[in-house]
Amino acid sequence: MNNADNALVNQSLAHVRIVMVNTTLPANIGSALRAMKTMGLSKLVLVAPKTYPHPDIDALAAGAQDLIEQIQIVDTLEDAIRDCHIVFGTSARSRTIPWPLLDVRPAAELSIDAVLNKQQQVAIVFGREDRGLTNEELALANYHLTIPVNIDYGVLNVAQAIQVVCYEMRMAALERTTTSSTETTNAQMQVAEGVAMDWDEPLVTHQQMEEFYPHFEKMLVDIEFLDPQNPRLLPLRMRRLFGRIQLDRMEYHLLRGVFSRVQALSQGKWKKTQQDEDQPHV
Amino acid sequence: MNNADNALVNQSLAHVRIVMVNTTLPANIGSALRAMKTMGLSKLVLVAPKTYPHPDIDALAAGAQDLIEQIQIVDTLEDAIRDCHIVFGTSARSRTIPWPLLDVRPAAELSIDAVLNKQQQVAIVFGREDRGLTNEELALANYHLTIPVNIDYGVLNVAQAIQVVCYEMRMAALERTTTSSTETTNAQMQVAEGVAMDWDEPLVTHQQMEEFYPHFEKMLVDIEFLDPQNPRLLPLRMRRLFGRIQLDRMEYHLLRGVFSRVQALSQGKWKKTQQDEDQPHV
Repeated sequence: MNNADNALVNQSLAHVRIVMVNTTLPANIGSALRAMKTMGLSKLVLVAPKTYPHPDIDALAAGAQDLIEQIQIVDTLEDAIRDCHIVFGTSARSRTIPWPLLDVRPAAELSIDAVLNKQQQVAIVFGREDRGLTNEELALANYHLTIPVNIDYGVLNVAQAIQVVCYEMRMAALERTTTSSTETTNAQMQVAEGVAMDWDEPLVTHQQMEEFYPHFEKMLVDIEFLDPQNPRLLPLRMRRLFGRIQLDRMEYHLLRGVFSRVQALSQGKWKKTQQDEDQPHV
Repeated sequence: MNNADNALVNQSLAHVRIVMVNTTLPANIGSALRAMKTMGLSKLVLVAPKTYPHPDIDALAAGAQDLIEQIQIVDTLEDAIRDCHIVFGTSARSRTIPWPLLDVRPAAELSIDAVLNKQQQVAIVFGREDRGLTNEELALANYHLTIPVNIDYGVLNVAQAIQVVCYEMRMAALERTTTSSTETTNAQMQVAEGVAMDWDEPLVTHQQMEEFYPHFEKMLVDIEFLDPQNPRLLPLRMRRLFGRIQLDRMEYHLLRGVFSRVQALSQGKWKKTQQDEDQPHV
């Protein structure tokens, strides 16, 4: 990810505000700021915080001074969300009245789509440490948002919940901002399950591997590990093994170098303690 | 989500352990336990923690007493991951040699697939608060894992990183456990495992690979392909290569058999045309 993409993602996330209602512990505000900044969000609104300011906030939000300066303090939740288009109320419990309910991942996707396509403002509202949001506050939300947790122990604290929400917001923004850009400077490595990653060396082709397997087998024959009259499953197993990874060019040449050295040794063309001139550079 | 589904998800997540190396602050251990339990993970391994036990751990992990009792304390990272099949090292920086690198979401998908389809054990390793994992520790991992963060401020602390990783693990387990399931018994998971498991040989563990690499290197030294005084990046590249595949038991023994044969050849203990009695059955 380059700086320009990062700036674009953060720009989208500037439209998503975190709202904390009646927060008691300054440490939770500090942790929230840190979670936000790490994920690229920048706007925190505090509704009637119990203790503010407080040194714990600054300590936990070290390096996020710019976010601290941008904090908005308001008296009521209404004030915090007045200019918003989409408001999510976070809730662990089901309430008396069923409300449109979204898990955090689809909620983040909906939010970022609204930001990018309609320039909307989004708020995610978090309640008190001990008893969350009131029914009246939850009724101000368009949607309720939940984080799928272990139902035996659903006690995510507010800072942890904000961490997960900010992470999903960034993931949604990243997907939508960077999918269009398809520049690939390095080789794309297909790891198991079709996951792509950047690699430092180009990967070898099928054709190169079709030279690799016979070389490997010839070497195994030379050291009489493989009987060409009765190869059994050995060649197939080696093909399955190296077919599971994609060798990169360096690995390919290193392994073929090893095969050649073993062959020379087995043929008496190379002896130990001989001066070694052809060791490859790695 | 019902109780049976929740139990199934947590059962999968029991195969995914969190490993914390040389943790300084007990509060981070407590927060980790809380993050884990909230998401249904249960196994924490501490490698030489600086302070343990400590009341902060119990305070922050209130309600997660069962996880505290299950904590394993070990002396070295090796001890923590010996029986694991897939090891992720968490890393914020890019290192000298690119390593297979996965974002947390695909890493979680890969992990849960390995748990469900191959009954594998997975470890996610987190480093010290101030300086993460050493290069040596990172080289023990099959993959490196990153969390996509704001590149202007990538300072997720260890507890926050564990929160995000545990969340993604739960999301991956939820998707895989509940999409196909109409019926939710333990037997159903057994069926699913049986269907997806199409590999003929068990896969080797981290510990077995830690015997494999030195053997391979010793063989390379014996044929003077590797200079032990100046190994350059060769051992690291071979570790990266074989860390990308997971060898099965047959492949493992075949390759070690090849190494031994080459060593015997280089030492003059074995000569061509000698009657071959120790060729393995494949």
